[in-house]
Amino acid sequence: MEIKTYVNTVTWTEKKKGIIEFEDKEKGTLETAVAPEFMGHPHILTPEDLFVSSINSCFMSYFLSVAEKMRLRFLSYTSEAHGILKPNGIDYIFTDMTIDVYVSVRNEKEKKKAQRALSMAEKGCYVANSLTATVTVTPYITIEEQG
Amino acid sequence: MEIKTYVNTVTWTEKKKGIIEFEDKEKGTLETAVAPEFMGHPHILTPEDLFVSSINSCFMSYFLSVAEKMRLRFLSYTSEAHGILKPNGIDYIFTDMTIDVYVSVRNEKEKKKAQRALSMAEKGCYVANSLTATVTVTPYITIEEQG
Repeated sequence: MEIKTYVNTVTWTEKKKGIIEFEDKEKGTLETAVAPEFMGHPHILTPEDLFVSSINSCFMSYFLSVAEKMRLRFLSYTSEAHGILKPNGIDYIFTDMTIDVYVSVRNEKEKKKAQRALSMAEKGCYVANSLTATVTVTPYITIEEQG
Repeated sequence: MEIKTYVNTVTWTEKKKGIIEFEDKEKGTLETAVAPEFMGHPHILTPEDLFVSSINSCFMSYFLSVAEKMRLRFLSYTSEAHGILKPNGIDYIFTDMTIDVYVSVRNEKEKKKAQRALSMAEKGCYVANSLTATVTVTPYITIEEQG
């Protein structure tokens, strides 16, 4: 295991907008803006969107890696993340994050594996572990009958 | 000042890939994948990219809001963020983040304002304040001669 570094740049374009570029240019660019609730622009990705989606996607990423190691065969996976930004003095802070995870599998045996994989993801997800906010994961695992 | 909630969903598509959707559908979707260094896929945005870019863009976002209040007139703004992911037991954790910020202005008076705006952004950026990692900001403010 070694240290890994992630690099990106943000360049202001106009008003309260900018462009994000990543080291690997093939990843494309993202437009970002100050959120409309902070007197920015609507319909453009905000830092808050990126932050909450980084935790949500890290959770899936960890789950997928564990699922592969366990040979878990799941049919579908969706997770919904809510990030709560609360007033903190003259600024704000993210205090709570919830992730509701919906996984469907074929049978009881796979359901148990999925439970284990989700619980490992909850413990291991690096992005979540790098926050001061509390991250609460609620799993919903369903067994889908074969047609 | 009131509580704000940010919501998004991640849906697995195939292999170690998924799609991120935001509450405001006009923001479009993002493809995400497990990073290649964690046996995922190249050239696709990873949770680590989203995480580091959320801090980088939050910093600009805060700067733009302060600049507006101060009536700072700057000519250009670019910031480069490096996020350091270090081994931590059997997993990883983001321990350090650096942001190098390049701002150009017209004169000494604006340079001083820019310094103040950057220092306020360093203190106030909510996303950075929601991390356990240390965030180090290094400002590079240059005066651009009028042509």
